[in-house]
Amino acid sequence: MSAPFPLVIDAMGGDKAPAMVIDGLAVALERHPGTRFLVIGDEAVLAPLFARRPALAAACTIRHALEAVPNEMKPTAALRLRGSSMRIAIDAVASGEAEGVVSAGNTGALMALAKIVLKSLPGIDRPAMAGIGPSARGDFVMLDLGANVQCDARNLVEFAVMGEVFARTVLGLRTPSIGLLNVGAEELKGDERVRQAAEVLRESHVSPLFHGFIEGHDIAGGTVDVVVTDGFTGNVALKTGEGTLKLVRDLLRQVFSSTLAARLGYILARPALERLREWLDPRRYNGAVLLGLNGVVVKSHGGTDALGFAHAIDLAMDMVTHGFNAKIGEELRQLREEAAARATGATAADGEQAQRAALAG
Amino acid sequence: MSAPFPLVIDAMGGDKAPAMVIDGLAVALERHPGTRFLVIGDEAVLAPLFARRPALAAACTIRHALEAVPNEMKPTAALRLRGSSMRIAIDAVASGEAEGVVSAGNTGALMALAKIVLKSLPGIDRPAMAGIGPSARGDFVMLDLGANVQCDARNLVEFAVMGEVFARTVLGLRTPSIGLLNVGAEELKGDERVRQAAEVLRESHVSPLFHGFIEGHDIAGGTVDVVVTDGFTGNVALKTGEGTLKLVRDLLRQVFSSTLAARLGYILARPALERLREWLDPRRYNGAVLLGLNGVVVKSHGGTDALGFAHAIDLAMDMVTHGFNAKIGEELRQLREEAAARATGATAADGEQAQRAALAG
Repeated sequence: MSAPFPLVIDAMGGDKAPAMVIDGLAVALERHPGTRFLVIGDEAVLAPLFARRPALAAACTIRHALEAVPNEMKPTAALRLRGSSMRIAIDAVASGEAEGVVSAGNTGALMALAKIVLKSLPGIDRPAMAGIGPSARGDFVMLDLGANVQCDARNLVEFAVMGEVFARTVLGLRTPSIGLLNVGAEELKGDERVRQAAEVLRESHVSPLFHGFIEGHDIAGGTVDVVVTDGFTGNVALKTGEGTLKLVRDLLRQVFSSTLAARLGYILARPALERLREWLDPRRYNGAVLLGLNGVVVKSHGGTDALGFAHAIDLAMDMVTHGFNAKIGEELRQLREEAAARATGATAADGEQAQRAALAG
Repeated sequence: MSAPFPLVIDAMGGDKAPAMVIDGLAVALERHPGTRFLVIGDEAVLAPLFARRPALAAACTIRHALEAVPNEMKPTAALRLRGSSMRIAIDAVASGEAEGVVSAGNTGALMALAKIVLKSLPGIDRPAMAGIGPSARGDFVMLDLGANVQCDARNLVEFAVMGEVFARTVLGLRTPSIGLLNVGAEELKGDERVRQAAEVLRESHVSPLFHGFIEGHDIAGGTVDVVVTDGFTGNVALKTGEGTLKLVRDLLRQVFSSTLAARLGYILARPALERLREWLDPRRYNGAVLLGLNGVVVKSHGGTDALGFAHAIDLAMDMVTHGFNAKIGEELRQLREEAAARATGATAADGEQAQRAALAG
């Protein structure tokens, strides 16, 4: 880390901001002691919140911003709001003051501002939104979750590579497996787009990690660690999974209060059920990450609480401390070489040989 | 019903066919006493299965078919297999001998054969696959589930109308609500395709039933009764929901056997939990329906058991006895008139007035 602050925090984004944000920051500081945060928000509103927390106040530098981006504001309007806490926070990443930003504000505005101010990493056509979820074999990462409702094969390939680096960096997996979401596992299923992306991945340097096509049930089944899809399908799949979990949670609550025996049964099974509830807790999966930009950008759910916001900060800290963007640069370089080799009809190895021969000659 | 048989059954499709199919048929006969079924399969294999069930044998007419469509066979190859049980079954619907067909065989082959042999209803551009699932407010129907991986706005509008008729006919809802799956509920979200479809629906005769855009979590949340989407997204969403339910079922099984107290708790809560398990039982939702063809076509899951197959037969019986296709014809006529009126820049009412004026003149 070279920047003065690992993270800058948009204190004004989120349904219960700034109180929820500052509470979350306090939890995060306990988990990451010694860290310094840059906090952007209305000084007059933040002052009493920090006054109650001298340790947190000592770890934070506050920078004033008069206004927040309203939740209903369109991205185009948010781009013109140069004094918003979100804009000032992103500017701090662009200027090199901070390595990453966490905000629970307007998603569309955050995506638009981050893309325009921070710009894509060299070699990335479209940044993607990624998120973590629970599966039968541990956590998975899925992307894109809605940054790009329409994608081509090239985008899907870039998502696969970014997701693989994310799984290594944040999920701590040495050889994460990658699956391309489709309507069937057979090679001929789906549209041209996914078939083309699969072909490129099979011939790329990540080919040993590429599992092939997966289907919807493979997501929670944990068939792969990285689920790659377009932003429309990914957004629907993530929210469908969340909605189904919520349905079962609500139904179980009804079941356990339906009879006296069931209530008694719940009390007995409670410690075991509690572990399951904690594992499936949506707050544990809070934080969608915008990948492929010059800087780490994490979007917290707007309706989360302090614990959920602290998880979003954890995610951003993991990416910053493990040098996510530096690792992705190397992968993208390889992808570009492979694409160039494909274009000239040669393999990457041939290309390197030819280059060496040219330099020698 | 005018056909000699309400349903023709492909006895040779499914992982455990024909035994599973005949067992399922026996369950279905108990639920629909007095019904006569046309059963297509290898007579030599079927004879001993029917010999054990004289009542079922008396209700069935067996027609010989030497071979089944293999599970791995491509649709194009299946189309050439004129003597398969699946083909003979679909031919019986085409000839008017039966009103509908139920098969647990090769999905791709069934879709291709049904489309080519039965052909689309007048006014339907693309038939769609529909299925039922559990939500917080009862059952919902979702379509398309994979018959069309790419769809345009017109297809989505037709799906909405077919789904609405299905919800009235099979789910027994008087005024089912329709939702268009998208990445956000706001009017400007999503791609051109869904925005265009929403606009047409808002101006159509189903407009009072049209809820607007919904998101993934609304499916299990029960926000609407009819979930409309393209075949790629629908297939992924359905399987994601199923996969998530399976994950929770598996985790609960682990939880309830993890400690002695949890095991005891399970025994106490068991009757209440059992009701939940039955309600979420995937067999209860078995049977995907191909809508928009001249005939009722129901695809049972290949790996289901007799009880699941019986549910698929129930679904087909509901559609046949409630005259699903006749009802859909009327809706499509209205949709065509609305489209014609839009094309001439007039409203449907204006069009009718003009027609009357022309006839009077």
